[in-house]
Amino acid sequence: MSTPEENPRGRRADAVRNRQLALHAATQLLAEPGGTLTVEAIAKKAGLGAATVVRAFGGKEALLDAAVAGLLAPLVERARQLLEQTAPEQALRTFLAELIAFQSAHHAISRQLDGLEAPATTALRQQLAEAMEEMIVGARRDGAIRTDLDTAVLVTLVGRTAFAIAQDQPASEGIVHAYLAVLMDGLRPQ
Amino acid sequence: MSTPEENPRGRRADAVRNRQLALHAATQLLAEPGGTLTVEAIAKKAGLGAATVVRAFGGKEALLDAAVAGLLAPLVERARQLLEQTAPEQALRTFLAELIAFQSAHHAISRQLDGLEAPATTALRQQLAEAMEEMIVGARRDGAIRTDLDTAVLVTLVGRTAFAIAQDQPASEGIVHAYLAVLMDGLRPQ
Repeated sequence: MSTPEENPRGRRADAVRNRQLALHAATQLLAEPGGTLTVEAIAKKAGLGAATVVRAFGGKEALLDAAVAGLLAPLVERARQLLEQTAPEQALRTFLAELIAFQSAHHAISRQLDGLEAPATTALRQQLAEAMEEMIVGARRDGAIRTDLDTAVLVTLVGRTAFAIAQDQPASEGIVHAYLAVLMDGLRPQ
Repeated sequence: MSTPEENPRGRRADAVRNRQLALHAATQLLAEPGGTLTVEAIAKKAGLGAATVVRAFGGKEALLDAAVAGLLAPLVERARQLLEQTAPEQALRTFLAELIAFQSAHHAISRQLDGLEAPATTALRQQLAEAMEEMIVGARRDGAIRTDLDTAVLVTLVGRTAFAIAQDQPASEGIVHAYLAVLMDGLRPQ
């Protein structure tokens, strides 16, 4: 019997497994309050050596990008689902509540990504912004959102203030409720 | 003639002057985008030695606290002036616009103070929150702000979202206008 070192197929299977272990560890660390995502911390949680973690992804940057993208993809999916199934204004309100809960539970993501090259994450964030823009445009068409303010500005406004509300860990129910009430009422045609 | 070193009055005058120079330099650095407030940077800008800067305030923490407090005190004064001169709802709107302009111009303050002991700054922030609470309570009394949401929650909501809007440098007019329009309309009794 050949060892993985002697067998190219075994080496590939090992590499896939190491990638999965490192990715899973990074994803878990992203949900820990105050957790700092160093290669050492990821390696320790994954039960791998630091060099193996770096090799599995070609660097910490790519690993973080993959971990965050793995967390954001279901959010994008959810936004699209809401757009298909619900009236746009209700979709926006529901999605914002879920987005704040997600951001509150993954508070460290933005700090960890600060200044890093993260193309998969950037693309998914862009898709999230586009889905929110679709909700706002649709709600305008329904007469449910005011038309005197620029759509792109509203997308930025909503995204930035929702993120600010999510800075509580966990976001207290009171402030999330008040935020959604004030925001959604303020967005109505006046 | 005695030199300052030999003359206690001269030493005291020197100490006062060094304090002022260090404080002025720190205040200027707080307004510079991306500026990092190290003792070395403050000393360089003040034309003093690093040891002199530390001696003048008993440490960087106290120096930063004094510099930020010097910037916040006029804001507290302004909030009180608005409360005396203007209807509470209008006072809140005007004050928020000025607060966002201030925060946008002094973007680094929060990051610099992160984790530091800053009693003067903390006290002034508390006074700012109290002034905003007074505006909200007054506007409620006038029937200009909804009563279905907790006042303390609204103060947190307004403070946190205003700060988020101020993260632009400088805050673009479009988003500040949209924020104030949506917030103030959303705060009205529905």
